[in-house]
Amino acid sequence: MTASPFDRLRLRLAEVNDLGKAATLLFWDQRVMMPPGGGAARAEALATVSRLTQERFIDGEIGRLLDELRSIEESSDYDSFEASLIRVTRRAYEKAMRVPPELVGELRRAAALGLAAWGRAKEQSDFAQLRPHLEALLELRQRYIACFDPPDEPYDVLLDDYEPHMKTAEVREIFDQLKEELRRLIDEIGEAGGVDDSFLTGEFEPAKQRELSHEILRAFGYSDDEWRLDETAHPFMTSPGAGDIRLTTNYRPDDLASLFATMHEFGHGVYEWGLDRAFARTPLATGVSLGVHESQSRTWENLVGRSRSFWRWFYPRVQAVFEPQLGSVDEEAFYRAVNKVQPSLIRIDADEVTYNLHIILRFELEQDLIEGRLAVKDLPEAWNAGMERYFRLDVPDDARGVLQDMHWAAGSFGYFPTYALGNVMSVQIWERALEDLGDLDERFEQGEFGDLRDWLHKHLYSLGAKFTPQETIERVAGSRIDAKPYVRYLREKLAPQVA
Amino acid sequence: MTASPFDRLRLRLAEVNDLGKAATLLFWDQRVMMPPGGGAARAEALATVSRLTQERFIDGEIGRLLDELRSIEESSDYDSFEASLIRVTRRAYEKAMRVPPELVGELRRAAALGLAAWGRAKEQSDFAQLRPHLEALLELRQRYIACFDPPDEPYDVLLDDYEPHMKTAEVREIFDQLKEELRRLIDEIGEAGGVDDSFLTGEFEPAKQRELSHEILRAFGYSDDEWRLDETAHPFMTSPGAGDIRLTTNYRPDDLASLFATMHEFGHGVYEWGLDRAFARTPLATGVSLGVHESQSRTWENLVGRSRSFWRWFYPRVQAVFEPQLGSVDEEAFYRAVNKVQPSLIRIDADEVTYNLHIILRFELEQDLIEGRLAVKDLPEAWNAGMERYFRLDVPDDARGVLQDMHWAAGSFGYFPTYALGNVMSVQIWERALEDLGDLDERFEQGEFGDLRDWLHKHLYSLGAKFTPQETIERVAGSRIDAKPYVRYLREKLAPQVA
Repeated sequence: MTASPFDRLRLRLAEVNDLGKAATLLFWDQRVMMPPGGGAARAEALATVSRLTQERFIDGEIGRLLDELRSIEESSDYDSFEASLIRVTRRAYEKAMRVPPELVGELRRAAALGLAAWGRAKEQSDFAQLRPHLEALLELRQRYIACFDPPDEPYDVLLDDYEPHMKTAEVREIFDQLKEELRRLIDEIGEAGGVDDSFLTGEFEPAKQRELSHEILRAFGYSDDEWRLDETAHPFMTSPGAGDIRLTTNYRPDDLASLFATMHEFGHGVYEWGLDRAFARTPLATGVSLGVHESQSRTWENLVGRSRSFWRWFYPRVQAVFEPQLGSVDEEAFYRAVNKVQPSLIRIDADEVTYNLHIILRFELEQDLIEGRLAVKDLPEAWNAGMERYFRLDVPDDARGVLQDMHWAAGSFGYFPTYALGNVMSVQIWERALEDLGDLDERFEQGEFGDLRDWLHKHLYSLGAKFTPQETIERVAGSRIDAKPYVRYLREKLAPQVA
Repeated sequence: MTASPFDRLRLRLAEVNDLGKAATLLFWDQRVMMPPGGGAARAEALATVSRLTQERFIDGEIGRLLDELRSIEESSDYDSFEASLIRVTRRAYEKAMRVPPELVGELRRAAALGLAAWGRAKEQSDFAQLRPHLEALLELRQRYIACFDPPDEPYDVLLDDYEPHMKTAEVREIFDQLKEELRRLIDEIGEAGGVDDSFLTGEFEPAKQRELSHEILRAFGYSDDEWRLDETAHPFMTSPGAGDIRLTTNYRPDDLASLFATMHEFGHGVYEWGLDRAFARTPLATGVSLGVHESQSRTWENLVGRSRSFWRWFYPRVQAVFEPQLGSVDEEAFYRAVNKVQPSLIRIDADEVTYNLHIILRFELEQDLIEGRLAVKDLPEAWNAGMERYFRLDVPDDARGVLQDMHWAAGSFGYFPTYALGNVMSVQIWERALEDLGDLDERFEQGEFGDLRDWLHKHLYSLGAKFTPQETIERVAGSRIDAKPYVRYLREKLAPQVA
């Protein structure tokens, strides 16, 4: 008996997924384990695997199967596995068909080389080393945009890869609202005078930070059986397969930022971990968009990890481990310090409020680059001007300026806005969880996070990519993406800093 | 202008090589980094990548190009890059054409699952957990053998994958000679009474072993730029790409075996490291056979690492680091202890003489399994009988018996004999190096290993897989494979234990 078209589709998608996971591992390893001498060969391997993944995806067989499956899609329940898999595959296929595999391979190779150059450029604070890579990547991205029907704005094409169905104009609208509200809040806080956070800089032995990171992760739900935590200069999460979740964090010897980075990456990891295992090796087995993904990293980093009740549980532990540094700092002072709002140079170290302005600056610069209003050579200057405009800060060097993030060096233009969209969505989902679960503070104070994790697992993580991001948010939170709850949350939480 | 057929061949081979390297990394990661929960997904990814590598290799394009290139091959110098690449590709292609990609994928999946089961089976010393995997793997191997023209012996087909062009009968002849000579030597040593090696068991802090391993490696030629050293229960070496050499070793807290494992894996690593970089992403970019590979691991482990002059350099360092344990042991006593000949249960811990009998036992059992004279269920009993016959040893449990090695669990039948062939070839190459370089002892005593490494690099490593293993040995050592130099070397080195 021959397999049904649906089963044949699954087999084909499983293959494509396996190849994609091989590329994921090549990437993870490059960032975490590979000796630098392997860089050139790795760029080639990544290019080949990515190109063949694309070739395999669009070689015609999947298109034929999708045609055969149209009636099954139409007769099946929209929510069913079958209809969802066909629908999601169809959209991905129609996009992929437009992009020559050679271009996919070239982008991947250029990204691998760009990332390697970025590492050196940042170390030496030398933008010139990255510049030709950015120019090449932007040129490739223009070719990528040209593969599609003319969009409302060229940036739409890039954004759609990270936040499917979202338009640049929608993002702009949300960001305009956010920008106005947040700048007002920052001004109010600025006028109210400072919070003391001087004790957050000092001596914090990395080995002890590692221990604390693991304690938090275990309380959240990490286990050695399905997770790893490694160290990289730039924390990230990836999953090279079901049951295999990889986080990285960065233990700096003079602050405690690693704890927040660890919680952040846990949020990404637990989303992937919680995908319905029945989706494994299909395009449904992934977070639905980077924005929704980020909503979860920010949930665990901020809504949990910067909450008073979290620190009621964990501060005694941190205080005991770093007694010389924190012995005389009480829990309330610590809580306020880790929530201090203050303009700063580095996005990933930014507080919950100013963080979004870092994103908005990048969103604006990206559009300028893509639309040709800004040349790569002028990017550092434009960056520095933006930092002055948004934060009234002087950027002392490119390492702490335009070179701080790896995204552009990897050709990932259009990715940044998802971070702020994630912030916005995190509170929408959070408020819905609290409606179901009631107040969580008592549980957090006991180090119990299972109820929250289970709720998110059931209502969000397990959905994977079955629905569109907007559908997903509407199902989980009961409303479309909306910045108001987020702004309200920040105002409420930070009221003491204003008053 | 379209690319020449030779350039098109190179492009195709580069692709296939990149896919192969992706599989290499999937494998390395599985053994070294992957959380156990990722095992099922990894088995699928390995199966898919291996199957697609095979599909891509035999999809017809390479065959057409090889036909077009026949005249170039014939008109080019045998030693030239062009003729060698075409010749080596042709042989690999003709073999690959016979094997359905599905079978390649199935073997890879079964190997990944077998390895996972082996880990648990060994831990619990429970052969029953491995048995169904071995049965499945043997069945797949029979299907693999059936893909080829009937060989003189079925084992020939398996052997050829690890030691190209070598026949089982040739191996048997070498091993029969070896068996007789070595058993006589073992008897003579046995009658002469023992060497004291009691001080090699005791307290040896793993962190200090790690430090010493790195010191040796650096003196040998390891650098952080192109190498890694990790820890696994079973040491191995692999290279996921040019300029990326990965060793593993195992630091046991109660002995110093890690130092020899590290030197062993270095030998494998430096062979891959020394491949002509112009061969990158072609089938020439690999050691020519597992036997020749093993000749190099055994060179650095034994001919260098168990030599008197090596320990004249390094023993003071080891003695200082492990003062409580070795403070009263002089260099000569240490040297004799690490060369003590004594029948033992575990192959990888065996001395230079008895090691070969471990291999011969496996070679015999493998043939019995493949020819159907031995059922998997009876393998533990046959193993134990063999250990009694060769060593007069009782095997206390399967963990220290039939479960000790991972090879069979990965479906690698036919691999073991290459270890003893490597021993034999190592001395042939070594004697030739000494003819060119003169006595090396003074250099080793100073911790200088560069001359040896450079000679091996120039005469052996850089050749890669350009020639057949026999051609390679003849070019490097000036003679065909021959056990006599090896036996003579052992007799000479171990004379003090006989006398």
